[in-house]
Amino acid sequence: MEPFVTKSEAAQIVKVARTRAGLTWAALAEAIDRPAPWTVSALLGQHPVPKAEAEKVGDLLGLDAEVVEALQAQPTRAGIGDDLDDPTIYRFHEALAVYGPAIKELIHEEFGDGIMSAINFKLDVQRRPDPDGDRVVVTFDGKFLDYRW
Amino acid sequence: MEPFVTKSEAAQIVKVARTRAGLTWAALAEAIDRPAPWTVSALLGQHPVPKAEAEKVGDLLGLDAEVVEALQAQPTRAGIGDDLDDPTIYRFHEALAVYGPAIKELIHEEFGDGIMSAINFKLDVQRRPDPDGDRVVVTFDGKFLDYRW
Amino acid sequence: MEPFVTKSEAAQIVKVARTRAGLTWAALAEAIDRPAPWTVSALLGQHPVPKAEAEKVGDLLGLDAEVVEALQAQPTRAGIGDDLDDPTIYRFHEALAVYGPAIKELIHEEFGDGIMSAINFKLDVQRRPDPDGDRVVVTFDGKFLDYRW
Amino acid sequence: MEPFVTKSEAAQIVKVARTRAGLTWAALAEAIDRPAPWTVSALLGQHPVPKAEAEKVGDLLGLDAEVVEALQAQPTRAGIGDDLDDPTIYRFHEALAVYGPAIKELIHEEFGDGIMSAINFKLDVQRRPDPDGDRVVVTFDGKFLDYRW
Amino acid sequence: MEPFVTKSEAAQIVKVARTRAGLTWAALAEAIDRPAPWTVSALLGQHPVPKAEAEKVGDLLGLDAEVVEALQAQPTRAGIGDDLDDPTIYRFHEALAVYGPAIKELIHEEFGDGIMSAINFKLDVQRRPDPDGDRVVVTFDGKFLDYRW
Amino acid sequence: MEPFVTKSEAAQIVKVARTRAGLTWAALAEAIDRPAPWTVSALLGQHPVPKAEAEKVGDLLGLDAEVVEALQAQPTRAGIGDDLDDPTIYRFHEALAVYGPAIKELIHEEFGDGIMSAINFKLDVQRRPDPDGDRVVVTFDGKFLDYRW
Amino acid sequence: MEPFVTKSEAAQIVKVARTRAGLTWAALAEAIDRPAPWTVSALLGQHPVPKAEAEKVGDLLGLDAEVVEALQAQPTRAGIGDDLDDPTIYRFHEALAVYGPAIKELIHEEFGDGIMSAINFKLDVQRRPDPDGDRVVVTFDGKFLDYRW
Amino acid sequence: MEPFVTKSEAAQIVKVARTRAGLTWAALAEAIDRPAPWTVSALLGQHPVPKAEAEKVGDLLGLDAEVVEALQAQPTRAGIGDDLDDPTIYRFHEALAVYGPAIKELIHEEFGDGIMSAINFKLDVQRRPDPDGDRVVVTFDGKFLDYRW
Amino acid sequence: MEPFVTKSEAAQIVKVARTRAGLTWAALAEAIDRPAPWTVSALLGQHPVPKAEAEKVGDLLGLDAEVVEALQAQPTRAGIGDDLDDPTIYRFHEALAVYGPAIKELIHEEFGDGIMSAINFKLDVQRRPDPDGDRVVVTFDGKFLDYRW
Amino acid sequence: MEPFVTKSEAAQIVKVARTRAGLTWAALAEAIDRPAPWTVSALLGQHPVPKAEAEKVGDLLGLDAEVVEALQAQPTRAGIGDDLDDPTIYRFHEALAVYGPAIKELIHEEFGDGIMSAINFKLDVQRRPDPDGDRVVVTFDGKFLDYRW
Repeated sequence: MEPFVTKSEAAQIVKVARTRAGLTWAALAEAIDRPAPWTVSALLGQHPVPKAEAEKVGDLLGLDAEVVEALQAQPTRAGIGDDLDDPTIYRFHEALAVYGPAIKELIHEEFGDGIMSAINFKLDVQRRPDPDGDRVVVTFDGKFLDYRW
Repeated sequence: MEPFVTKSEAAQIVKVARTRAGLTWAALAEAIDRPAPWTVSALLGQHPVPKAEAEKVGDLLGLDAEVVEALQAQPTRAGIGDDLDDPTIYRFHEALAVYGPAIKELIHEEFGDGIMSAINFKLDVQRRPDPDGDRVVVTFDGKFLDYRW
Repeated sequence: MEPFVTKSEAAQIVKVARTRAGLTWAALAEAIDRPAPWTVSALLGQHPVPKAEAEKVGDLLGLDAEVVEALQAQPTRAGIGDDLDDPTIYRFHEALAVYGPAIKELIHEEFGDGIMSAINFKLDVQRRPDPDGDRVVVTFDGKFLDYRW
Repeated sequence: MEPFVTKSEAAQIVKVARTRAGLTWAALAEAIDRPAPWTVSALLGQHPVPKAEAEKVGDLLGLDAEVVEALQAQPTRAGIGDDLDDPTIYRFHEALAVYGPAIKELIHEEFGDGIMSAINFKLDVQRRPDPDGDRVVVTFDGKFLDYRW
Repeated sequence: MEPFVTKSEAAQIVKVARTRAGLTWAALAEAIDRPAPWTVSALLGQHPVPKAEAEKVGDLLGLDAEVVEALQAQPTRAGIGDDLDDPTIYRFHEALAVYGPAIKELIHEEFGDGIMSAINFKLDVQRRPDPDGDRVVVTFDGKFLDYRW
Repeated sequence: MEPFVTKSEAAQIVKVARTRAGLTWAALAEAIDRPAPWTVSALLGQHPVPKAEAEKVGDLLGLDAEVVEALQAQPTRAGIGDDLDDPTIYRFHEALAVYGPAIKELIHEEFGDGIMSAINFKLDVQRRPDPDGDRVVVTFDGKFLDYRW
Repeated sequence: MEPFVTKSEAAQIVKVARTRAGLTWAALAEAIDRPAPWTVSALLGQHPVPKAEAEKVGDLLGLDAEVVEALQAQPTRAGIGDDLDDPTIYRFHEALAVYGPAIKELIHEEFGDGIMSAINFKLDVQRRPDPDGDRVVVTFDGKFLDYRW
Repeated sequence: MEPFVTKSEAAQIVKVARTRAGLTWAALAEAIDRPAPWTVSALLGQHPVPKAEAEKVGDLLGLDAEVVEALQAQPTRAGIGDDLDDPTIYRFHEALAVYGPAIKELIHEEFGDGIMSAINFKLDVQRRPDPDGDRVVVTFDGKFLDYRW
Repeated sequence: MEPFVTKSEAAQIVKVARTRAGLTWAALAEAIDRPAPWTVSALLGQHPVPKAEAEKVGDLLGLDAEVVEALQAQPTRAGIGDDLDDPTIYRFHEALAVYGPAIKELIHEEFGDGIMSAINFKLDVQRRPDPDGDRVVVTFDGKFLDYRW
Repeated sequence: MEPFVTKSEAAQIVKVARTRAGLTWAALAEAIDRPAPWTVSALLGQHPVPKAEAEKVGDLLGLDAEVVEALQAQPTRAGIGDDLDDPTIYRFHEALAVYGPAIKELIHEEFGDGIMSAINFKLDVQRRPDPDGDRVVVTFDGKFLDYRW
């Protein structure tokens, strides 16, 4: 059989190829007309990339056909603890440790017993200028699902 | 020595007393003039509650003096895995598993090498009406800190 | 403050009281007009029991007011590993280990990228007579949710 | 000695080859006249595939002889935690966390002390149309085994 | 409600009461006309003890009614790692680490793909005199179950 | 230096070579005049195989010299958790979870404080015909060692 | 039933009672005519203490009858990781991490394939004067057991 | 850059080369005039080997220059759990589980609060003839370090 | 026997009593004429407190005799992971994750193969004013110990 | 695509190349005019190395272009437990286990509720001569961040 690459090998290759090509993630997202957070996570292997978008990215980054094929494959999504210790990611988990039970109480008070969907879901990352130092503002936005038998 | 209660015992007592008093978290937050997410996490033991606010809550909920004292104590903050499996909290950790590496890439692209602070930080929980089902919108808002030797 | 009981203490008490009262789970479910699987998991602390149903169960089992109060409280739901080793429960996790990746492939083939909801969800446990030995038939029935940005 | 491939390498190869061949799992199952869930899990390495069926699949997917050989080998079956975090699989484990103790109570009430076999066992995955959104219906069907000394 | 004891508290009480009564496990097993290994594991909380046998043991050991009641309750069975480190138990797990894969190969060679049931199962512990030092002989005896769809 | 293979690579090679040669484990054991359980575990890397026996097996299976060399090397023996989840092996660990404390009590009652050796030890795997389904009978037979200062 | 104490409660009580009585472990060991390491580990719950010795210690330390009874009970021995982090104990595990594989090689070179028994075993702790600082000298002394089928 | 080998690859190569050369560890230790336990652990990667000794061993075993280079490199020392399950090594950890708290008490009684150094430390492995079976005698000998602020 | 308290109970009591007495840790340290970091860790149970100092603290905080006794007892020191998740403590472990391998390289370059002692060791915590925000300066100061056979 | 190397492969290569070049870490740090601890951790993959410095190091050590490229890439920083067991690194974690809660108390007493930043942070490693043995002095120096909503 012809050789193939896994989705995590593809993610490694995309990261190096993007740097060598001198392209930003924002530029890649714009090229395929998708939001940046979706684009980055999809190219890192967390979503299947539709054929047209995968080929567009393949052209821009000069990827082999096997890499473009891998980008389209259905992922088994990444484990929760995999990058937990990286400080940039850890701070979000720490915030959930401190504020998670409060978020839970407020969701139940406002909506009743249920959850915020992580599937019917989108996320945004913004920079907000602030005289005391600019701020990272990340918004989690998911449909409420109530426990419904 | 007089008896005392721990912060986690105090959190348990506050939850039961709030239900018995028929008060919402929002009402408690308003009574002490603090944002709701801060108020809930502080009363659940994640922040020291200043004396005036602790006493105000004590009056509203009919708490014993030892409970009011415990609310004011400096916490050792909760572990990341403690409530991880609860579905309402888990979905946030799952979203970080799927999107965390993308958030990291976008922070580095926009700000350079560094993190969002989880200390100089605030958080908001809102309901956004939507014809396809209302949405839970949670905003993480922390100061950017760059790796600076 | 008046004493209170936790949801897991309440679950222990319900199990003993049910045995002493000589009542089946099926009878309790019928008494509150709910499906048996929902009734059992709710009385074991996995769902908040509405006031009327909690009081009905309290009457049938002779529960103290604090236990009836605990049944109504919002749960933090049980951890995945808690009873994993019990053989009756383990076989289900083992079946998921063997067939989980196949279930995933078939869901993606039939529905596309997404999940079966565990929130908009119901479950049934039945006995099916079989000449080679009766069979346990457990049905997981949840709404499909597609990854939708 | 001639080269050989492991069962997990064979599973990877089958997944890529199936996509390249443009065949569904359902079509593969039909070709070897086996139920789809059995077929998928067997081709992913969880069951030994009989010689005739392995060769049939090898013909359809253009597999090397070593891959066809690997499909026939006796597996050491997959660990429970291996894909646990993938959302599509996780929801089933979460449902067991919430409802597992209730399933256990109902099995004991109906059958006495014992288990549902995961060996004398079959599983079905169906789509059920529903105006509120189609549903994933997964049925676990195993022989009851009582603790019998 | 009247007080109650858990099955693990009952097991602790049985162990102390047996020592104080000066009775061997063998004598208890004989008194209830059951094999010794079944008797000991049941009294330690791994099996529900039928009412007559539980009361007989209660009489012999002078147990309170709540303990006799606990012996009859359906157990959630003990976790695999709980006593793993105790040297007397560890040696059996070590033997499985060394010989487990060989046992697996021989079962598959003799019976085909399947398992030894741990439910339709019995176990014996014997002493075999030997001039080089007497031997502990433990027999695992379970029905073969083949993977049968 | 000349190339070499590890004991776990050798075990993989032996398994494939045995299948290709169409030889049973029993036939290999007979060829080297050793009990089957010892032979299988030794060839899977759990015991050093004496030179004559290793070469005999090498001839029968057509193994390279480096594989024959690896079979003779002193092993670092396999970890307890390595194959724990495979159902055929798991049932033995589960039986120890349920009956281990009872085995321990009966050993102490019969022999005093001590253990069954897992070193001065042998093991047998047999099939016992039974009208209700044939049975797997595995015997652990080890010298008793008492705690002796 | 009369109250009882567990072996670990007994160990706690012995430690406090010994300090209050102003007796050294050496004096206790001498009083019951046993080596000090055996005496200490037995009183801390790792060995059953014979009746005469338990009562002698009970007299010297003023222990209640239930504590004396607990000292005589058969232990389930302590887990390997329980005190691992205490620096005084950790250094021994660290030395095994660094030198364990070398000890293994030297035992196999000198004795063949087998182990040092931890059951037919004794241990000594000594102080050796040294001008560069006195030294702790701990000797592990166990019977060699060869793998013997 | 020229190729290089890691210390753990070097350890693997040394073990095979030593067997092929038919040399004992004792002979290697004598050749470089170092104690056997130090020599074995150093060649297995736990200590940097000085240049002269590394080259001497390289000559005796016919090692490549990159292997000799790797032997001299500063190690990151091995993890405590890496070989824990191997029975020959496990018995030492088990002995520490049983006797570790007693060793700690005796060190504190004799020396005060402090530890045995695992750095200013040596270890010896001896065979002691015994009519009941020869014994493995391993001596840990480290400088006492007291907690000194 | 008279009641007693454990060292960790004593630590809890000291923390509450100190707050109620309105005394700083610095004041307690000055009162017993010891450095503040030593004083705090000793009162939290990490060092035995000499009798005079324990009694002095007991007088200042109004501690019961059993608490004063507990402060003097030899500790089993705290586990590494116990408070790891608390953000104030976590940042130090994170700094070690990022810089630990660099610290190791620099120690080896400057001193050779060995370690910084954590026993012959002291630690200081200072505030350093800084126009960009005051800084926490923590100094680890331990004797170098070289690997010396 | 052209080949590439990961940051951890680059770190391995740098370590070997530095030894072969006979250069100290101090010399490398001086060559790029950066503090030694920063330089070492950056070259070991914990910080992105700016282009000019990466190329300078590449020239000094004769690194391939792909290695120089890898040094400049943004890292995912190392996990906390990765090298924990190495004695030179472990002693720092052990000191945090013993003194961490005291450091926390003193930071809160001096600064209020907050943390030492591990991002706006620098670290120094020094040798301090001492007649009783020279000392390793490591200084953690980070900006105080208070919990500020």
